[in-house]
Amino acid sequence: MRAPLAGPEIERLIQALARLPGLGPRSARRAALVLIKKKDVLMHPLAEALAAAIDKVTTCQICGNIDSSDPCMICRDDRRDVTTLCVVEDVADLWALERAGAHRGAYHVLGGVLSALDGVRPEDLSIGRLLARVQEGRVREVILATNATVDGQTTAHYIADALENAGVKTSRLAHGVPVGGELDYLDDGTLTTAMKARKPV
Amino acid sequence: MRAPLAGPEIERLIQALARLPGLGPRSARRAALVLIKKKDVLMHPLAEALAAAIDKVTTCQICGNIDSSDPCMICRDDRRDVTTLCVVEDVADLWALERAGAHRGAYHVLGGVLSALDGVRPEDLSIGRLLARVQEGRVREVILATNATVDGQTTAHYIADALENAGVKTSRLAHGVPVGGELDYLDDGTLTTAMKARKPV
Repeated sequence: MRAPLAGPEIERLIQALARLPGLGPRSARRAALVLIKKKDVLMHPLAEALAAAIDKVTTCQICGNIDSSDPCMICRDDRRDVTTLCVVEDVADLWALERAGAHRGAYHVLGGVLSALDGVRPEDLSIGRLLARVQEGRVREVILATNATVDGQTTAHYIADALENAGVKTSRLAHGVPVGGELDYLDDGTLTTAMKARKPV
Repeated sequence: MRAPLAGPEIERLIQALARLPGLGPRSARRAALVLIKKKDVLMHPLAEALAAAIDKVTTCQICGNIDSSDPCMICRDDRRDVTTLCVVEDVADLWALERAGAHRGAYHVLGGVLSALDGVRPEDLSIGRLLARVQEGRVREVILATNATVDGQTTAHYIADALENAGVKTSRLAHGVPVGGELDYLDDGTLTTAMKARKPV
């Protein structure tokens, strides 16, 4: 923007909003306008939610999840099966599995994936803490639920190697045709994988 | 969402973000995670920008623009030509014209458009205040820069009628092919209008 369109407070709000993922400069301006127009129903609740989150939200020292308590809700829940540990890249992946109700055990959030390109080394992730958790002896299976990307699979292989002599089973998510997916729209890699991993009916 | 994925503070933040235009539930979750992960560079600045905006931002009593001062920057700027008044639906339209540097006069923000469907009547918009501004006698031309929608054009016609005996010139933005636009991608209405309003070279 060449000249400021409005007072510095509005500019600052637009700039802070534009840094959120999914909001570009144009939608940040629109969001700022809507916030200002609906001060009571939108702007105040967002300001209060942010203040509360700044105050309360923390990272779980056990699994790396974020929550308003440490240990997090999942690590404190004694109905969960702590013998099965699901390793994910990011909190968003943990949320996705929880939304699906796909895993009833514990989690371990790596905080990223190994990447030669981005210079992410094993010591930059919480792999050391994962090995320490496994060595405590309660874990029987480690599910490697990293993303099906090159870096995600590299990271899964690295962890599987590191756990080779730890006396635990390691597994990874099945690959194949997504449920409800149409073959016509799938990439070649997925189709080839699904064909190779075909199962008797 | 069936069960909360995380503490109430995080849920509340996601819900407040999801109400912004352009952010759905999925992108609100992503935005909340990024905010929490980058507390210092994203969450604190956004919280502070919101607090400052709540504190300072107000609506200009003269033109309806929003700014941190009342009268707004534009109404206070004595280099602007107050004899030319540009009528827009919304502050976003004012910003768009200012970004383009397309108007060096004053503005009047209607706060919406007449709409039989949505039950918006003339008294719901700032049309009365517009007529009062014109009656003060300094305005010589009113540019009706409402959107080129049915409601926008209806509103422009209504205002032009109301100003008929006010002794001011009324004008509206030209319609035609957008600069840089390709004919092949334009709708029939725009093409017909552009053809009818063609000009000698």
